[in-house]
Amino acid sequence: MKNYILKLADDTLIMGQRLAEWCGKGPYLEEDIALTNIALDYLGQSSNFYKYAAQLQGENKTEDDLAFLRYEHEYLNAHLVELPNDDYAQTILKVYFFSVYQSLLYSKLSDSADEQLSALAQKSLKEVKYHYTHAATWVKVLAAGTEESTSRIQKALDNLWEYTGGLFDEVKDETELVALNLIPDSTTLYGDWKRKVAEDFQNFSLEIPASDFMQKGSRTGYHTEYFGYILCELQYMQRAYPGCEW
Amino acid sequence: MKNYILKLADDTLIMGQRLAEWCGKGPYLEEDIALTNIALDYLGQSSNFYKYAAQLQGENKTEDDLAFLRYEHEYLNAHLVELPNDDYAQTILKVYFFSVYQSLLYSKLSDSADEQLSALAQKSLKEVKYHYTHAATWVKVLAAGTEESTSRIQKALDNLWEYTGGLFDEVKDETELVALNLIPDSTTLYGDWKRKVAEDFQNFSLEIPASDFMQKGSRTGYHTEYFGYILCELQYMQRAYPGCEW
Repeated sequence: MKNYILKLADDTLIMGQRLAEWCGKGPYLEEDIALTNIALDYLGQSSNFYKYAAQLQGENKTEDDLAFLRYEHEYLNAHLVELPNDDYAQTILKVYFFSVYQSLLYSKLSDSADEQLSALAQKSLKEVKYHYTHAATWVKVLAAGTEESTSRIQKALDNLWEYTGGLFDEVKDETELVALNLIPDSTTLYGDWKRKVAEDFQNFSLEIPASDFMQKGSRTGYHTEYFGYILCELQYMQRAYPGCEW
Repeated sequence: MKNYILKLADDTLIMGQRLAEWCGKGPYLEEDIALTNIALDYLGQSSNFYKYAAQLQGENKTEDDLAFLRYEHEYLNAHLVELPNDDYAQTILKVYFFSVYQSLLYSKLSDSADEQLSALAQKSLKEVKYHYTHAATWVKVLAAGTEESTSRIQKALDNLWEYTGGLFDEVKDETELVALNLIPDSTTLYGDWKRKVAEDFQNFSLEIPASDFMQKGSRTGYHTEYFGYILCELQYMQRAYPGCEW
């Protein structure tokens, strides 16, 4: 169970860290604040999941140990969340894909036989539904906007699509956890995700890419070339000033 | 004396780290290799200076401690070397300014009453003379090239100029070291630098910017906003795996 909670925590930590790069640089003030709030939601979720993971691990580990003091190969996030923000189209499309995933996931986890996990999912579900609405609105606006906005969202789609499958890659022991009704089955979840995205894309007038090639290696401890640089920044304070608090 | 040696070491370490970002991305293969070799020269010089500084400090410090385990406010480099590479014009102009400085500096340090410092300067002088020739050739080519190359080198000049003065900012106790014939006087050095650059700029058909405003704060432990990110990457291995060797 601990690895599964860590995968949820790592996804949201890295999504939050990446999105926070936009802080103060959003396309206009209102959107700058909206994006930063979404980033804070992710960090809040990751904090809750890390607390739970630390509790499961015991050994006097804290949430900070798990967030800041693991090595690169110990992080179990999907590759999608590591990818660079690039332009605003890619950023918001990434949030869109991730929020469809999170909406379905947290909705199912709300019925988990694990009470603590169920409570965390219920609490976070409201947030990710708002993220979904916000991101979907933007994707639609960009897809139906100017020639430039259309070409940018299309380029973002071509960049990101082959990383979406990795969200549904499993960590060790998931089959067993599914059997115990603790977590949803990832194959079913992926099917639901594809149906929802296909439905939205009709509405957005966007085409699902023809190739069904998907990048492998998410949630294995292997990472894209971008991840090391994210960790350098993320962990620097705790590495340089071990145990610092403020 | 230790602070003075550290300022030489920190300048070359950060120049090398920045320039190494171009490794594998130079404008063509030959130049890619040339730039990477210059970066390696800087790192070699910094290594020698750190060894000497560690010896002066005692306390069982090693060159690695000084290069990788100090905090941001302890680095005494000039702000110029921290600035982003930006495009090739800015990168090569930075190397040009720095190599004029180093040529004059090492030439004078070759006569230092401190034998170890004199030997290090003599050894490195050959390298920086080559850097100078290489960078000056490029600056001239770009300044007299296409409309785009001319505008890029001009933009680089407008960006970098106000940071050049910081190379000559002093650390504590320099006056005393000058009096002992250990190091050259920085005001004289700055005068020589300005004369040499003015002479070259006539040859390059470039104008020295009219404003003589210079950024303050070099060599004080205060840094530009870029420096923290450089340190994150530079120090990560030693911070995450304390004492690691290979």
